[in-house]
Amino acid sequence: MKKHIVVIAGDGIGQEVTAVGKQVLDAIAKKYDHEFTYDTALIGHEAIEATGNPIPDETITKSKASDAILFGAVGHPKYDNDPSAKVRPEQGLLGIRKALGLYANLRPIKLFDELLSASSIKPEILKGADILFFRELTGDVYFGERGRKDDGDTAFDTMIYSRYEVERIVIKAFDAAMTRRRKLCSVDKANVLESSRLWREVVQEIAPRYPEVEVEHQFVDAAAMLLIKDPKRFDVVVTGNLFGDILTDEASQIAGSMGMLASASVGDTTGLYEPIHGSAHDITGKGVANPLASVLSVALMLDISFGMKEEANAVVDAVDSVLKAGFRTRDIADATTASDKI
Amino acid sequence: MKKHIVVIAGDGIGQEVTAVGKQVLDAIAKKYDHEFTYDTALIGHEAIEATGNPIPDETITKSKASDAILFGAVGHPKYDNDPSAKVRPEQGLLGIRKALGLYANLRPIKLFDELLSASSIKPEILKGADILFFRELTGDVYFGERGRKDDGDTAFDTMIYSRYEVERIVIKAFDAAMTRRRKLCSVDKANVLESSRLWREVVQEIAPRYPEVEVEHQFVDAAAMLLIKDPKRFDVVVTGNLFGDILTDEASQIAGSMGMLASASVGDTTGLYEPIHGSAHDITGKGVANPLASVLSVALMLDISFGMKEEANAVVDAVDSVLKAGFRTRDIADATTASDKI
Ligand SMILES: CC(C)[C@H](C(=O)O)[C@@H](O)C(=O)O
Ligand SMILES: CC(C)[C@H](C(=O)O)[C@@H](O)C(=O)O
Repeated sequence: MKKHIVVIAGDGIGQEVTAVGKQVLDAIAKKYDHEFTYDTALIGHEAIEATGNPIPDETITKSKASDAILFGAVGHPKYDNDPSAKVRPEQGLLGIRKALGLYANLRPIKLFDELLSASSIKPEILKGADILFFRELTGDVYFGERGRKDDGDTAFDTMIYSRYEVERIVIKAFDAAMTRRRKLCSVDKANVLESSRLWREVVQEIAPRYPEVEVEHQFVDAAAMLLIKDPKRFDVVVTGNLFGDILTDEASQIAGSMGMLASASVGDTTGLYEPIHGSAHDITGKGVANPLASVLSVALMLDISFGMKEEANAVVDAVDSVLKAGFRTRDIADATTASDKI
Repeated sequence: MKKHIVVIAGDGIGQEVTAVGKQVLDAIAKKYDHEFTYDTALIGHEAIEATGNPIPDETITKSKASDAILFGAVGHPKYDNDPSAKVRPEQGLLGIRKALGLYANLRPIKLFDELLSASSIKPEILKGADILFFRELTGDVYFGERGRKDDGDTAFDTMIYSRYEVERIVIKAFDAAMTRRRKLCSVDKANVLESSRLWREVVQEIAPRYPEVEVEHQFVDAAAMLLIKDPKRFDVVVTGNLFGDILTDEASQIAGSMGMLASASVGDTTGLYEPIHGSAHDITGKGVANPLASVLSVALMLDISFGMKEEANAVVDAVDSVLKAGFRTRDIADATTASDKI
């Protein structure tokens, strides 16, 4: 098959890990006789430096014209510590998610057996845990109105969801549950938030269409606790953009390290594949970043965007072999001495 | 000393655990020759059933007139699964926090040595962890404007903070850090949210007044990860209402169980002391609820509201002895078989 892939490496370790992801794509093309062509595009801090815009039009145009996007990371400490910055690297990531309508972010959380002891959580709690998160990605407080009032002394953001936004992600999550253990946990804060009450209403309305799926609702605070206490109780988890951001980073500890976690952002058009870790400037250029999240993002791309199941499995098997052979980056070397960032 | 305490037991296991907390108050009064008088008041589902109002005026009046409040829990599954309910038990809890100006919620997270193996996290990761959370409690998306638009098909909530609200909680957190290991971690999502940018601005402004305190900023997603990966890196953590809700429930796993965690809600007037666990209707009336969070809430009351350090320590020592003697509720019995709720 012929496929055209846009590589958007972005900031910090995004460059290093994406380079490895691309090598894996090349190896797959060679082995399975596919033809992968590539283009590159700018995003984030890198794009601001080059063009003043965290998400140049060209990046969107190239992305839309591609069959899939291999994404790195965005972010820079310079902006983090300047609360008044008007232009930020993160606008690049949020902008491309919105422009391409990538409303469903799939984050599979699964521990490679070889890494059982790399986590800070006990192996007997982790063994067998296998969670698929569906994080809504183009709504919520990420995209609601925000601003200042009272001469800048009051700041607000708007959490907002419309019915159709909830429906489309919830349906994707139910469909996935049908192919797995048929359990769906919807996470909200419906005891306080109106947007969560709409979320819960929609889940309740759709549930009868999937009588074989066992549905539970958890408040986000309880879910944050249960993920660590008993990760095996979860199969598919569906939640909003903000709660999904927090819970999936937390859940990275189930997989041993953020450096192991891939994600797929899909919608109605081109899919985008990215590690869930960020730009990690503290370790950039040191050659210690774990590239496996990017490699596993490539596996998701092969599977979801290209329908290449066998190729995808080959990539996952390769990761497994590398771990079995004892190769480790320091984030997965040992739970008690590992660096806290990747 | 003479002290007048209002007991607001509320819903579910709130009744059971608060009864034990009160016994401990009685024992302290006897042993240390204090005179504690009590009154009771209604809240939550219990109050709705009796008066139609989750927070009757009388509850507020009695609370304001007291020296401290011993609080149980609110909540009922009936409302959780009815997204259209207009009156909810939680309005009682939010209402009393607001009415009494309880803007600072202190949640100490510390593991009793005896419970090292009760957690799902590895003992070597936990040993020595000692975190004091300051959760802002009367602002944020809990109290911003919320509602529906588009014939009910769009729902919104407003995250909102004003400078003075951030200042007063941040100052309390810095003051506490000065009496501890002099480290403060402020948690926000300033790379996306305007309210978080105001939050970070204020922390940056106040920091120079405390040159001895080492300040770090973490995004909430990273914080959720680091709490599990390396809890020992934290000393005092300060954050907004919603992030504090999520992170402290998650952090309960550091202390072995939610059933062990007490909290103090303080502001300019009467302090309120409550377990961080909820009403837990699934175990209500079975005699299995862990009363230690209520007992430890009593210790916080003695210390913070009454200035009775010795008495407070006696309560904590008593909890330690009970654990050393091998007594356990099932939530702290064994990490792999424990119930997932209390
Ligand atoms: C960089 C940031 C804006 C982003 C988010 O919050 O969505 C990141 O944390 C993620 O999870 O992809
Ligand atoms: C019951 C609920 C409204 C409450 C909250 O979210 O504040 C609870 O979870 C808590 O943490 O005290």
